[in-house]
Amino acid sequence: MGPNVMDKLRKQESIGRDISHLFRSIRNFMGRQLEPYGIGDAQFPFLMLLLHEDGISQERLATALKCDRATSARSISRLEHAGYVRRVVDPDDRRAYKVFLTELGQDMGHIMWSVSRDLNDMLLEGFTDEERLAFRSMIQRAGTNISKCNQSRKVTDD
Amino acid sequence: MGPNVMDKLRKQESIGRDISHLFRSIRNFMGRQLEPYGIGDAQFPFLMLLLHEDGISQERLATALKCDRATSARSISRLEHAGYVRRVVDPDDRRAYKVFLTELGQDMGHIMWSVSRDLNDMLLEGFTDEERLAFRSMIQRAGTNISKCNQSRKVTDD
Repeated sequence: MGPNVMDKLRKQESIGRDISHLFRSIRNFMGRQLEPYGIGDAQFPFLMLLLHEDGISQERLATALKCDRATSARSISRLEHAGYVRRVVDPDDRRAYKVFLTELGQDMGHIMWSVSRDLNDMLLEGFTDEERLAFRSMIQRAGTNISKCNQSRKVTDD
Repeated sequence: MGPNVMDKLRKQESIGRDISHLFRSIRNFMGRQLEPYGIGDAQFPFLMLLLHEDGISQERLATALKCDRATSARSISRLEHAGYVRRVVDPDDRRAYKVFLTELGQDMGHIMWSVSRDLNDMLLEGFTDEERLAFRSMIQRAGTNISKCNQSRKVTDD
């Protein structure tokens, strides 16, 4: 590979890289905020989802968070050890687990709410109301573009 | 936790959640694109960084990608097994490793370039030139906001 390709790679516009960079900063921020509660940055989205949909299956958690089963199982297991969730064998499918928040897990709702709000305010500091709306709408448009593409691939693969 | 908090959580504006969602879609897309080359979505950013800065230390890779040492070590080890990188003990620090691209790893530059370009085009489909610029600039402003915050925390912690 000559220096040309390296140069191209460096200079190339890359929204993907920009988004990934921002995501990693967000993950770091959340990790620090939730460290005192024994919740790692990888566990945060699981807990957040359970606060929305308590009692869903471990597999659905993995699908919704677009991660593989092993990663999902590891995160749930960490949350279980920390006392935030409990796993119950699904009576309809003995090989599957449903995940429920414990009382402690439910109490985290308030903290999650306040941490999320702080994160949002901090990210959007200096943005006008119009800019906030435009930013959200662009993120959603990009999301729709890529979801369409990921889905059509899935269909082609099947 | 009453239904009020759940409701608040659901309705709350959350750029963090939107960004995380978009990031996970991007990771999935990249995972699928690079699957034929035996490169997992978690390894992609490491390879990308090495294409920019060959021979940097395993620790610097972790810092730049804002992940912990174990995650970094695991990704490098997978890339090593797939033949894309080799690790060399740092002559200045016998406990540290420097990571170099193999010839195969360097050849991936062309593929990475084309996959990144496809991703970018796909994410921004339907965006005008002005919108592209505005989007990048907003992502960067949000990134600057959160970096400032993460850094001031670090200073306070030390």
